[in-house]
Amino acid sequence: MHDELKVPPRILLGPGPSIANPRVLKAMTTPMLGYLDADFVEIMDDTVGLLRQVYGTKNSITFPVSGTGTAGMETALTNVIEPGDNVIVGINGYFGNRISDIAERCGATVTPVNAEWGDIIKPEQIADACEKVSPKLVAVVHAETSTGVLQPLEEIIEIAHQHDALFLADCVTSLGGQPVELDERSIDIAYSCTQKCLACPPGLSPISFSDRAVDVIKNRKTKIQSFYMDVTLLEEYWMGDTRKYHHTLSMSLVYALREALRVVVEEGESTRYQRHERNARALIAGAEAIGLEPAAVEGHRVPMLTTLRIPDGVDDATIRKRLIQDFGIEIGGGLGIFAGKAWRIGLMGDAANEQNVLLVLNAIEQLLTEIGHSVETGTAVSAAAAAYQNSNG
Amino acid sequence: MHDELKVPPRILLGPGPSIANPRVLKAMTTPMLGYLDADFVEIMDDTVGLLRQVYGTKNSITFPVSGTGTAGMETALTNVIEPGDNVIVGINGYFGNRISDIAERCGATVTPVNAEWGDIIKPEQIADACEKVSPKLVAVVHAETSTGVLQPLEEIIEIAHQHDALFLADCVTSLGGQPVELDERSIDIAYSCTQKCLACPPGLSPISFSDRAVDVIKNRKTKIQSFYMDVTLLEEYWMGDTRKYHHTLSMSLVYALREALRVVVEEGESTRYQRHERNARALIAGAEAIGLEPAAVEGHRVPMLTTLRIPDGVDDATIRKRLIQDFGIEIGGGLGIFAGKAWRIGLMGDAANEQNVLLVLNAIEQLLTEIGHSVETGTAVSAAAAAYQNSNG
Repeated sequence: MHDELKVPPRILLGPGPSIANPRVLKAMTTPMLGYLDADFVEIMDDTVGLLRQVYGTKNSITFPVSGTGTAGMETALTNVIEPGDNVIVGINGYFGNRISDIAERCGATVTPVNAEWGDIIKPEQIADACEKVSPKLVAVVHAETSTGVLQPLEEIIEIAHQHDALFLADCVTSLGGQPVELDERSIDIAYSCTQKCLACPPGLSPISFSDRAVDVIKNRKTKIQSFYMDVTLLEEYWMGDTRKYHHTLSMSLVYALREALRVVVEEGESTRYQRHERNARALIAGAEAIGLEPAAVEGHRVPMLTTLRIPDGVDDATIRKRLIQDFGIEIGGGLGIFAGKAWRIGLMGDAANEQNVLLVLNAIEQLLTEIGHSVETGTAVSAAAAAYQNSNG
Repeated sequence: MHDELKVPPRILLGPGPSIANPRVLKAMTTPMLGYLDADFVEIMDDTVGLLRQVYGTKNSITFPVSGTGTAGMETALTNVIEPGDNVIVGINGYFGNRISDIAERCGATVTPVNAEWGDIIKPEQIADACEKVSPKLVAVVHAETSTGVLQPLEEIIEIAHQHDALFLADCVTSLGGQPVELDERSIDIAYSCTQKCLACPPGLSPISFSDRAVDVIKNRKTKIQSFYMDVTLLEEYWMGDTRKYHHTLSMSLVYALREALRVVVEEGESTRYQRHERNARALIAGAEAIGLEPAAVEGHRVPMLTTLRIPDGVDDATIRKRLIQDFGIEIGGGLGIFAGKAWRIGLMGDAANEQNVLLVLNAIEQLLTEIGHSVETGTAVSAAAAAYQNSNG
């Protein structure tokens, strides 16, 4: 039990954590500072500034919650929802269900708007639901980590606002991998995580509230049920001239997030988004060449997380175990109703590169060939290589 | 804004974070693993085993919550409290107030048991309150970080149990610095943090629930209001044979905590507790020699955090600013009603050593002398040195 910490080498191509950027890991060796040390407050401010840039927002209330993506989700919901509020939740995957569960724990009456896993929520569905319940909040998942669906947002945001509802987007898998653009899109509430497309270890959840959302929070009739996640208290620590102790931030995680955001900004956001798209196209080209079909509807696929249907007769667990044992590659299994039926291949942050695409395709091809899903050796890699050439051409 | 991360050197002798152990910082550079990777699950199990040892418990439900000490506090309360429950809270400092605030947000009817800041909660006070309200839970702070008072626990635990109430101890500042001994004392619920006496960066909150507490949780009539902190779900991820995804743990913070606990166990718990006591005695001897009086009642002082009354005519902020600017030393100001009236000097974890005691005493003596609180140079250091000699003799 007391042995020195040792971990095996892993190429992390699952749904997160992704491979952490080495600069980010190094930043975490930086010594602690007091939670109100002027030098630390400056680092907090830097982090907020960088976060606003990557989120595409001028929102004052933008900072990382001291917890993982689910803590961000709960912070978002618990601050705006009061008992009895109507909330519309788009559910086309595992995390839509989670939003619904948490909203109910906050006392909301949830109206689910369902779509098949792998499909998007349609604007007319949101419009119908809004007509029925006049919601305080409409919530959807921007990039569903369980299905790999990238939800189009513009139309449903407009519908939500026409009905005077706040609009919430779960950006756990999108931030740093695809444009989020809170202000341009008029997203009122967004949260994300650090361990996916920001290539940072997990532990913080960047969150942002528009002024409209802040107004709703400040005009609550009931107390926010969580103290730890109370944005009115967190604001007094994160923002403004007089910083007031609320909890002791994890300096190490803030150092890490700041460095991760610097890496994003240095690469350039649009370059980074295109890199994720190019690699996803090559991955899908290779996968389709060996008979693996994407589980997310065409035209609405998350470039950072590709779901592939597991062919009949192929045992999910066996293949994933062999990928780890023989190749040191982790890919994700399916969550919820996709368990055993889909693989989730993440190309997130630093991990979105040609080397990883070719490695994982070659490994899967080899394993499928071994169990009789015979294809000509090199089929997947050739198809991916061709896709890269098209991208560059 | 985008400069390389640089932090000034700091000797952290405040209320936490304390100076992180270098082995712990190094552990955080370890690459990520999947949240259900068999190798990571083994690291989780190791961490749980080490935590049980340092907590002095066989409690099955013992693990770090993915948040800071306040998240642990809220997890403890939100899982056992249902709306309308009677909860007795000992309030003799800032964190007793926080327990009360959070318990109320969970729907509890709180009966406060107050004592002066700097004093302990008396068993007869708890007994009286128990007679009046038949509480579901009695909560006190073991080591009050705002006052430096170490609360005696045995008698009030017995009283709580006689009244069939659960007993909760806030061990945020005690774990790793003084014996907590959950099983020997029959403490039902305890939580702590990582950034004080464990000499680890902040970000996790080790928590433990006795079987009695778990029974109460499993027999709730209402749903736990937090999903993120729901122990029945967290148990399915942290414990047992079938691990079930709940949220993505911060691998880096778990690596860090595991390493920090290894350091504690290598030193030996009782050696570590004695080291904290010896250094606190020397600090107080030195402080008293230059006219600084402890703010916590004698016989009940937290060795890891000494509160000193600021003499009349001495400006708190000026002295603390100069300590940072001229000496690179951070000490804590007062919280709540102690703001401007007391200093908090933490000698926690790695920082509890002779070097730091002499440094901080000498620095404070110099600054007080400068503003006219004249004493013979070296008075504080000499008194501390004498105390060390007595300790060793």
